[in-house]
Amino acid sequence: MATATPSRSYALPAPLPLDGGQALADASIAYETYGELAADKGNAILVCHALTGDQYLASAHPVTGKPGWWERMVGPGKPIDTDRYHVICANVIGSCMGSTGPASAGPDCQPYAMRFPVITVRDMVRGLVALLDGLGIARLHAVVGGSMGGMQALSLAANFPERAARVLAIATTARHSAQNIAFHEVGRQAIMADPDWREGDYYAHDTAPDAGLSVARMAAHITYLSEAGLTEKFGRRLQDREAKSFGFDADFQVESYLRYQGSGFTRRFDANSYLYITRAMDYFDIAEEHGGKLADAFAGSSARFCLVSFDTDWLYPTAESRHVVHALNAAGAPVSFVELSAPYGHDSFLLDVPALDRVVQGFLDG
Amino acid sequence: MATATPSRSYALPAPLPLDGGQALADASIAYETYGELAADKGNAILVCHALTGDQYLASAHPVTGKPGWWERMVGPGKPIDTDRYHVICANVIGSCMGSTGPASAGPDCQPYAMRFPVITVRDMVRGLVALLDGLGIARLHAVVGGSMGGMQALSLAANFPERAARVLAIATTARHSAQNIAFHEVGRQAIMADPDWREGDYYAHDTAPDAGLSVARMAAHITYLSEAGLTEKFGRRLQDREAKSFGFDADFQVESYLRYQGSGFTRRFDANSYLYITRAMDYFDIAEEHGGKLADAFAGSSARFCLVSFDTDWLYPTAESRHVVHALNAAGAPVSFVELSAPYGHDSFLLDVPALDRVVQGFLDG
Repeated sequence: MATATPSRSYALPAPLPLDGGQALADASIAYETYGELAADKGNAILVCHALTGDQYLASAHPVTGKPGWWERMVGPGKPIDTDRYHVICANVIGSCMGSTGPASAGPDCQPYAMRFPVITVRDMVRGLVALLDGLGIARLHAVVGGSMGGMQALSLAANFPERAARVLAIATTARHSAQNIAFHEVGRQAIMADPDWREGDYYAHDTAPDAGLSVARMAAHITYLSEAGLTEKFGRRLQDREAKSFGFDADFQVESYLRYQGSGFTRRFDANSYLYITRAMDYFDIAEEHGGKLADAFAGSSARFCLVSFDTDWLYPTAESRHVVHALNAAGAPVSFVELSAPYGHDSFLLDVPALDRVVQGFLDG
Repeated sequence: MATATPSRSYALPAPLPLDGGQALADASIAYETYGELAADKGNAILVCHALTGDQYLASAHPVTGKPGWWERMVGPGKPIDTDRYHVICANVIGSCMGSTGPASAGPDCQPYAMRFPVITVRDMVRGLVALLDGLGIARLHAVVGGSMGGMQALSLAANFPERAARVLAIATTARHSAQNIAFHEVGRQAIMADPDWREGDYYAHDTAPDAGLSVARMAAHITYLSEAGLTEKFGRRLQDREAKSFGFDADFQVESYLRYQGSGFTRRFDANSYLYITRAMDYFDIAEEHGGKLADAFAGSSARFCLVSFDTDWLYPTAESRHVVHALNAAGAPVSFVELSAPYGHDSFLLDVPALDRVVQGFLDG
C-alpha cells in the first residue's frame, strides 16, 4: 500500500461557477496525494475517479477499510510510480467523501439535499482545476481516469487545454448514449421511489433510501460486467444449496452477489450524490459544449492523448473511444489508441489486466 | 383485427402437478381462439406468450384497449392465417389476465399472494397441455412462441413430444443466463423494496407496489431494445424543451419514454405475477431437467423445429438459439435456423420485420 498523507481539504477561495448558471459558494475539495512534488512542480499526475469512486486511490477507505480503488496501478514501482510522480486524487464536487455535495451544509447550515445545484462533469473539472491552482500546479504531467474519470480527463483537455501535457482516458466516452442515460434513469427512479428518500430530505431522519439506492447499484453493477464474465464467475450455480428452493431467496450465486453489492454500497455512498453524479454523466456531451463538433473541442490542445478501451465493455464500448480518437485526429492532436482484450467488461480498468499496466506506464513515462 | 371469440376460461378437472412438488387445485386457464377448428382437429396452432403477454394475441386488450400483441402476425391472410388455422392463445398460470395466479383466490377464498406455489416454465406448459386435453386436441399443427413463449414451445417439445408436429421458437433460449437472472433479480428487489408490496399482501389495500413494479419494468425494458435502436429512436434528444433543465425532470426523451413504459405497465400487470413469472424464467434450464444434456431433452421428439434469432438481441443472443440448434442436430431432429437482421433488439419478434413473417408462414405452411 502506498503511504498516503492524511486526507486533506482545500477550501475554494472563490465561488465555483457552474454550467447551470449558479455559483457554488464556500465549496471545498477533499483530496489525497502520494509521492513527492518535484521542486519545479512538473511531476504531478491528477487521477480522476469514477461515479462511485473517491480520493482513496491508493490508501485504505475510511469507511470500508478496503484498499484504495487503484492500489494495483498506483504506488512505488507501480505503473503510476509514486517514486517518480506526485499523484493527486480528489473527491469530485457533488460526491460524499469530503468534497462539497448534497449532504454538505448549505448557506443556512442545513444539508443542501436537493437544493444543491445540478452540476456537470465540466463543473467537477472546474473544481479540480481550482484545487490545482491552490496547489500551485500550472501544468500536469498527466491527467488520468477511467469511466467518469476518463470523462473528466477529456473535459479537462477540452476546457483547460494548457493544464495537462498528457491525457489518458480509459474505458470512457465523450457523450452519454441513450442506453447509458436509460440505465441511470432506472437507478434514479429506484431511489426516488423509496419513501425514505423524502424528496431528498432524509439527513435528519434515522433512515436513508437504502433500498432504492441498493436497487440502483444492482442495476448499474450489471452494466459494469460482461455477459461472458458473469457466466464464467457465476453461471447458473446455486448459492450454498444443493437444489432450487422454489422460493424467492437468492437461490443463484449471481443473485446473492448482486444483493451484496447493493447493500454494501449503501454503507459508503449517499443517495442524493448518486442522483447528482448520474445526472452530470447523462448531461455529458463534450461536442455539444463546443458547438456540436467534437474535433473543435480539442482544437486548442497541445497535449498528447492515449485512449484505451476493452473489448468486452458494453457500457462504453470501443466505438465510443474510436469516436474520440477520430476527433483528435481531425484536430491534429497526437493520439494513441488501444483496444485491450479482457473478460471483465467495463470493470476491466480496475482489475488485473497486465496489458493495461504496460500501456499506462509506457504512456506516462514516454 | 381478427375476430375473436369472447375470452373463455377452462377449469382444470384435476390438480395441476408442479415441479416444486405441490399440486395446484382448482386452477383455470383463460384463453382466446381465432379461426375454425377443423373436423379432424388437425389445424390447431398454440401460440405461447412472453413474460408480460396474455391471451389477447389478436384481439383488443380489455384493460388498455390496445390491439392484440401479435395482430401483425395473426389473422385472416396473415402469416399465421386464421382462415386456415385454429389459433389458441392462453394466459399462463402465475399470470394475471384470468388464469390462476397469485392474485387469484386460494382455498381459503383469500388471494394466494406469496402463498402461491413457485412455478416453472414446465408447469406453465403442463397447464397449456391440460387445456389442449380439454379441447380434445391431441396433436398441434404447431406450437409457436417468442421470448418466454419460445421457452414454452421448447419445453412442450421436450416434455410432451407427441403434442406438436412443428415447433417454432423465436428470440429465445433453452436456459436463463447469469445476466438474465441478474436483470430479473433487480426487478424483483425493486418490487420487494416497495413498502406497498407488504410481503405480497397488498390486494386488500388501496395501494399496490406500483413504484417498484414500474422500476422493474424500466430495467427490463432496456434489455428488450438494442443500443443502436435506442440511439436511433431517442439519441440524446430532449423532451419538449430547448435546453437542459438542470433538474431531475425527464429532460431526455429516453427518460420520458422509460417512465411512461413503467407507469403504463402497472395499470395492466400484477406485481406478484411479475415475481413468479420472472422466477420461473430464471429457473428455466431444459438441459438440467433432462440429466444435464440438452440433446437428451429432444431425443424423443418427432417434431420439425425452426429457430429464429435477431442479430441485435442481446437478451437472448443468437448464440443461445445456435446452442439449441446444435442439440437438436445431435438429437437427429429436423431443424432450420435463421438469424434475422433487425434493428430493434429482443423486441424485434413483436415488430415490423417482414423477413420474420416469411419465415413463420413458410415454416407453418410447409
